[in-house]
Order: sequence, then structure tokens, then C-alpha cells
Amino acid sequence: MFTNSMPRYEILSPEAMATLDRGWRRIVSELGIEFAKPEAVEMFKAAGQRVDGEKVFFDPEFVLEQVAKAPSQFNIQARNHANDVIIGGDNMVFSSVYGPPFFRRGDVRREGSMDDFRDFAKLAQSFKAMDSVGGVVVEPGDAALDSRHLDMLFAAFTLTDKIVMGNVVSEINAKDTLAMGEIVFGGRAAIEETPFCINLINCNSPLRWDDRMLDSLMEYARAGQPVICTPFLLMGAMSPVSIPSALAQQIAEALTGIALAQLVRPGTPVVFGSFLSNIDMQSGSPQFGTPESGIGLLATGQIARHFKLPFRGGGGLNSSQVPDAQSAYESMMTMMPTFLSGTNFVMHTAGWLEGGLVSSIEKYVIDVQILESLQHEFTPIHFDDEALAFGAHEEVGHAGHFLGAMHTMERFRDCFYRPFLSSSDNFERWTRNGSKDTAVRAAEIAEKKIEEYEKPAMDSAMEQELLEYVNRRRTELGD
Amino acid sequence: MFTNSMPRYEILSPEAMATLDRGWRRIVSELGIEFAKPEAVEMFKAAGQRVDGEKVFFDPEFVLEQVAKAPSQFNIQARNHANDVIIGGDNMVFSSVYGPPFFRRGDVRREGSMDDFRDFAKLAQSFKAMDSVGGVVVEPGDAALDSRHLDMLFAAFTLTDKIVMGNVVSEINAKDTLAMGEIVFGGRAAIEETPFCINLINCNSPLRWDDRMLDSLMEYARAGQPVICTPFLLMGAMSPVSIPSALAQQIAEALTGIALAQLVRPGTPVVFGSFLSNIDMQSGSPQFGTPESGIGLLATGQIARHFKLPFRGGGGLNSSQVPDAQSAYESMMTMMPTFLSGTNFVMHTAGWLEGGLVSSIEKYVIDVQILESLQHEFTPIHFDDEALAFGAHEEVGHAGHFLGAMHTMERFRDCFYRPFLSSSDNFERWTRNGSKDTAVRAAEIAEKKIEEYEKPAMDSAMEQELLEYVNRRRTELGD
Repeated sequence: MFTNSMPRYEILSPEAMATLDRGWRRIVSELGIEFAKPEAVEMFKAAGQRVDGEKVFFDPEFVLEQVAKAPSQFNIQARNHANDVIIGGDNMVFSSVYGPPFFRRGDVRREGSMDDFRDFAKLAQSFKAMDSVGGVVVEPGDAALDSRHLDMLFAAFTLTDKIVMGNVVSEINAKDTLAMGEIVFGGRAAIEETPFCINLINCNSPLRWDDRMLDSLMEYARAGQPVICTPFLLMGAMSPVSIPSALAQQIAEALTGIALAQLVRPGTPVVFGSFLSNIDMQSGSPQFGTPESGIGLLATGQIARHFKLPFRGGGGLNSSQVPDAQSAYESMMTMMPTFLSGTNFVMHTAGWLEGGLVSSIEKYVIDVQILESLQHEFTPIHFDDEALAFGAHEEVGHAGHFLGAMHTMERFRDCFYRPFLSSSDNFERWTRNGSKDTAVRAAEIAEKKIEEYEKPAMDSAMEQELLEYVNRRRTELGD
Repeated sequence: MFTNSMPRYEILSPEAMATLDRGWRRIVSELGIEFAKPEAVEMFKAAGQRVDGEKVFFDPEFVLEQVAKAPSQFNIQARNHANDVIIGGDNMVFSSVYGPPFFRRGDVRREGSMDDFRDFAKLAQSFKAMDSVGGVVVEPGDAALDSRHLDMLFAAFTLTDKIVMGNVVSEINAKDTLAMGEIVFGGRAAIEETPFCINLINCNSPLRWDDRMLDSLMEYARAGQPVICTPFLLMGAMSPVSIPSALAQQIAEALTGIALAQLVRPGTPVVFGSFLSNIDMQSGSPQFGTPESGIGLLATGQIARHFKLPFRGGGGLNSSQVPDAQSAYESMMTMMPTFLSGTNFVMHTAGWLEGGLVSSIEKYVIDVQILESLQHEFTPIHFDDEALAFGAHEEVGHAGHFLGAMHTMERFRDCFYRPFLSSSDNFERWTRNGSKDTAVRAAEIAEKKIEEYEKPAMDSAMEQELLEYVNRRRTELGD
């Protein structure tokens, strides 16, 4: 897994942090946060917080006490323990795009399918830089609505041996996720000891946690599985058109969700989530890869560290309709701050297109190329007298070249990062090879990866048990 | 002009800086630097440095004494003083691509022409974010070799009222640049008082300054015009395959060029130049937008600040053959560190394609979009209690939306950066509008900008004098 030992880029002054601190405290105490689940409200009430219907008015110190119970770092186990990850600290974990209903490859844009899901799972497994296929890498429109979570989990568990994200659509789906995890990881005690999935709990921003999300949060928390409490903030729609205001709201929402997880089970692994961008104020469309979202990401990393919490954010977000220049510069506009802020869990790393409506095969490959490059850029280099290579300068002298120098010959194989997608072919060679732009080459790489994909070994009895669980539950769910 | 008040991202530890310090001192003192101009060697000898043929062996303390004479910040005047710039400090100045022999628009790739040059000049004038058309935004292959510098300068002076870069091909060209500057800015004393051009002096790396470059350096230094002393380092070819080694070499080359400028005229405004990337070790092709070049850029900014010198580097560098995803992510891979390192003078900001062989109309527009976005991202936001917009939260409450909130209504026009190229149109609308990808839209924007371009006013006597100078010199040069 990747560890980011480069410095963090922090942009908030102590005064700015103090302003934000006043902001979230005022929101949770004066306006309160709605929890659309009576059990949650009761728990807060029992813990001494003032409640009024679904609204909970928090003592900020109580929130901080709960938050302090969360670990600053925790492990998630993968089926192949070589792919286990650590969430928190300097570690960065990269997961695929999550949620798009549509699929795109070349000029074809259509509803996603289970076959598409499986192709993405194969890509996630094939690319070393990716830590997870994620949860819903594309919505499989051809699978029955009530049971498709079973199909996706089965695919993720069998086609990859990396960590998975749990399904959060309902308490039922969360329970199914846990049951399948128990099959793979050896029972409830084993998954409670070391979690196997990580789970996205979105806030119905502003200031409301909805019932299904809370069902999932509580179900996963009871099982000791990590929850990412994520305010969903498109400034202008779900938050005011002011970055400081959105950041204060984000703290208020994230911390109160985290507080609930700690009430359910003290020590529940949690992640301070951020999904912060803005809408185009003229069309109302969400925009991604914006300057505002970059600032938000840098600020959020600093805020999460202030609360000693792991942090989720960033990824290859963009608004573009096709895997073109815009899709790439907007993605970089987010991915670079993702690294600069040391984001611990990165959803939407690869495949995101069209504002998150489309999972794109080409974009997946492009994003992995960006990811690999940034992983190299954010790896510290060693400065010592040997690295100065004075001998090479002595050998080559003035106006010569280093191509054949001893120092070069000894290192040429791995001295520089070698991209797998980017081309530096000269124009003649590039033309001779078919004048293929990046998207065309990306599609070819994806095809080859999927073709050459090898299914990771799984105990056949375990696979059978998983399959039987899926089939039994599918019947029970009426599909 | 743009001022970058965000923090600098510094990646070199004090130990790394000390290692580099040992490195460059050893190179200049033990290996020496070649100066292919007897006059330069004589000056160093007269100043007490040991020389052997073209090689000068430096006392590092002497180099530092000379460097200390250079201003850490200086002004360059434009024809329209509203476009004057400051080089140094937190200021960032953005200039166009420089040097490509080829031009590309759509699927047409051909030799550049003076018409192309003029189109780029119009774009540079039209986009507020750009500070200069630069020097050779594209090589006009249809203009006579010996006099094309006159045509380019005439175009830059008359079609734009922003700062220009001087021609550096020969001492003759430098003299012509100065003479034309004297016409525009009111004589030699006026341009010596405040320089009007900035001039790229490349090192013939490793460790050699060539005669023509030194001719130009000395000619410009005598006239008090700024010189950018730029080691030209493609690691693996012009420097060892080690970033620390390349950085030490870069310091050795840049500082000795700067020392010469100070000997010629103490106080000559100079810029610590950097053009640092690597070759593909299998094909030998130069690669741009690489992780290594990003690290080099961040490190170089820190190094230049250490020597209290303004710094040139970065831009929209990439290896791609077309303005596609690769061209954009590689450009961002350079432009983001360009901002993070607070680069004072940014060449190649817009238009660079195909490893610098091609000036692309579409890429010019794409790069300006990237530039504008980053300028917004690197503008600090104000954190105070008003920015927390608590009233907006009170108004909207829980699970509502902020679209119609008073706070939003008062600010919706300028609360977020609004891109001029990026599209967040929904798929239906985008399809209805012709399914245009970024490059197609960029070409349309360029066309419109060129069509709507208005020539900035110039005193007709001055324009006539410039034209007469160009025509007279063209005849004298035999074209």
C-alpha cells in the first residue's frame, strides 16, 4: 500500500481554524442536527443531549468526547492479507468510482450491467496501485434491485482479493454484507477483531442524517466495521456559497455522525468524510475539479488531522462528458490536492466521468496512470552524497551526454517512473502506430488487462458457501 | 498581475539543502564551467578565478558574492503600464510557449508561420491571465531566417501591449531587440531605468555556456535587461539520472551564468532558470509532466528562494501528440507544482504540445483554462464569522437547499469561479450542442477570440518608426 511521507500542504491559519471551530459549535448547539431514526435520537438523549423530535442539540464538548473514542488509525483486512490496508496516518488507500448508473466505453453510453461491474473488478484487481474495486463501481441495471448487492459483493469477493466496501442501501444489505464477510473471514468474532469492509454513510446535507443511512451506520458500527461519515456538500445547493461556511457545516455533520457511531460502539473505526464541491450557479449543474473543491480538500485534510481522525476525500472527479482534456485536468485538479492533503481513503480514484453519472473504462485506465504518477511524485527521494553522482559529472565533463555513462548504465532500468499509458513517441512513430489518442490507448490497455486477468485463488468450499448464501438470500428477497 | 499568497510547498530538508550545497560547490570548483567566449573567461580571470582555456574554476564564495548583487525582485515595463509586471517575491508572471517549429490546429500539423505567430499574439493579448506572448511562440518558417526576429518583435509590440521576451539567437538579434525597445519606451536611458524585456539564456548543459547565448547574455546585461539563466536538463541526457545530482548541476550552471551577468553589470536583474525533466531511458525521447519533473520544480523553487533569486520554471509541459487527456494531466502535473513552488516567471504556460515541438491553438486555450482555475485556487479565502454565514443555515435549516437563500441570492454571480471552457452540461444538452469535446470547444473559443480581438492603441508615429526600423534592418541583413 502507498504511504505518503511527503509534507502536508496546509492552508488554514490558526485564526481560520478558530473561526471554523466557532462555526461548527454554533451549528450543532443552536440549530441542532436531525437524526431520522428514533433509536439514534434516544441514544443521544440518554447521553444527556437535548432533543426535540428528530433534532438533537449538541453540547460540542460531548461531541468531542465521543470523537476522541475513535481510533486515529485502523486496519482493514483483505482476503489476501498482502492487500490489507491501514486507514489513517500517512497511509493512502485508493478505491474505484462509486455509484454511477451509466457505463461508457468509446462512443457507447448505456445503463451499467453486472458484466461491466465484473470488468471493473478485474481492472481493480489487475492494477497494483488500486486497493479496492470499491462498492458500487457501476450500478448493474440488469440485476434485480433488491438482490444486486449480493451479486456485487460476490463479484468483489471472488474476482478480487483486495478490500471491499459494504453495501449501505439498507439495514438488510448491511446485514448481508456482514454475513458474506463472515463466510470469507471466518465468523463474526474475526471480522469484529479486524474489519473487512469500509462503508460510506452520506449525510442528507444540510444537517440531517436519514433513516436508511443511519440503519447502515448502526449496523456496521455494531459489527465494528468502519464507517465514513460524509457530508454531501455541493455548495450553493446543500451548503451556503461560502467555503468557510461549508467547512463548518461539514465538521458539524461529520462529527455528529461519528459521535453516533461511538455511542453505538465506543472505538468504532470511523473516517471523517468529505464530498465537497459546488454547483454552477447559472445552470444548477454540479461541478467537479473546481478551484473551490481543491481548496476544500486541502482544508478538510487539515481539519481531520486536527480532530485526529482519518480522512476521506478527493479522487478523479470531473464534470466532463468524455475522457478528454477536461476530464483529465479536472481530475488532476482534485487528485493533486488529494495527495497534498494526505487523504487516507480515496473514493472515486478511477473511472469517474460526467459528474459521477458514468463509469468509464477509458477513464479508469487514465486515472490509474495519474494515480501511479502521483504515487511516484509523492515518494521522497534520498539526498546524500552518493545521489550527487559526482563521478558521473567527472566522467561526462562539459557539453557531453550521460546516456552511456557508467552511473546511467547501472540505473537506467528503474531510475525514472515509466508510464504505461502516456506516450512520448515522436510524431512519425505515433502516426505509424495509428494516431491513437489517450482514450483509444486506454481502451486497448483495459481490454488487454481484462483479457489477461487471472482470478485470484479462493478455497472452493468458501466460494460455494458464498454462492449458496447469495442464491438463498436472493430467493428470500423475492428476486 | 497574479500574486500567490498561498503557502509554498517545500520538500527539501535542511540536510538535503546542505547536500546540494556541497554538490554545486564541488562542481564549480573541481570540474569548472566552460564559457565559450574569451571575453567572459577574461572577466572571470580578472576577478581572480582560475581559468584553463574555456574552463573557469570557481571559488564558490566568489560566485555567491556575485549572486548577492542581483536584485531579489525587479520590474519589467509593458507598453501599457497597466500590464507592467514584477518578477520575484510572491508574484507570478505567465508567458506563452516558446520555440516550437510546428503549429497544430485540429488535425492539421505543419510548419509555423508569421500568421500563426500573430494569432497567438492576439490570444495572449485577449486572455487577461496571460502576461506575455513571450518570445518565439511559434517559429515562423515562412519568414526569412535572419530577419524573422524583427517580424516577431514587431508583431509582439504592435499586436500586444504586454511585456515581451527578447530574441537571443545572436548578439545582432539582441541589439535589434534593444533598438526596438528604445523606440517603444523612449530611448536607452529609459530601458536601462526600467527593463522592457526578459531574455532566455540556456546553458549547453552539462557545464557549458555557448558563445551565442553568452553574446546575448552580455548584450542584455549591459543594457540592464533581465536574463533567465537556465540549465537545460533532461535527466539521462544532459544530467545524471538522479534528481539530487541534476539539482546540484542546475545550481552550478545557473549561478555561474548569473555571476557573469553581475560581472558585466552589477545589479543586472536575473532569474534562476530551470528546465528540468527526464528522457525515456528506453527510447531516448524527452518526457514532460513526469513525477521527476514535478519534484524538480518543487525543489528548484526552494533552492532559488535560498539564493534570494526570482525563479523560472514549470508551465504546461507535456509529451502528448494531441490536446487530449494526456496533454492535460501532464500539463497539470507541471502547472500545479508551478503554483505550489511560487514560480515567478512561467514560460510555456500555454500552447505547448508534443514535447515542445508543436504550438497548438487548442492547447493554448486549454492551458489558459487551467491557469485561470489555478489562479483562483491559489487565492487565499477570507475566514471570518461573516464567511461562516450562520444566517444562511438558520434560514435553510435541515435537508433544505440553499439555491434561493438570501445569502446565496446576494452572492451567486461571483461566489464561484466560472470556467470558460470546461462544460458541466448534462449529457442531453451536451449531445444537442454537437457532442463537442474539450479540444473542439477550445478551437471555437480561439477562433472567436481572434475574431473579436482588438488591436491595442499605439501612437502612429511610433508604429511607423518601428516599421521603418524593421524594414531598414531587413535590408541590411540581406533579406
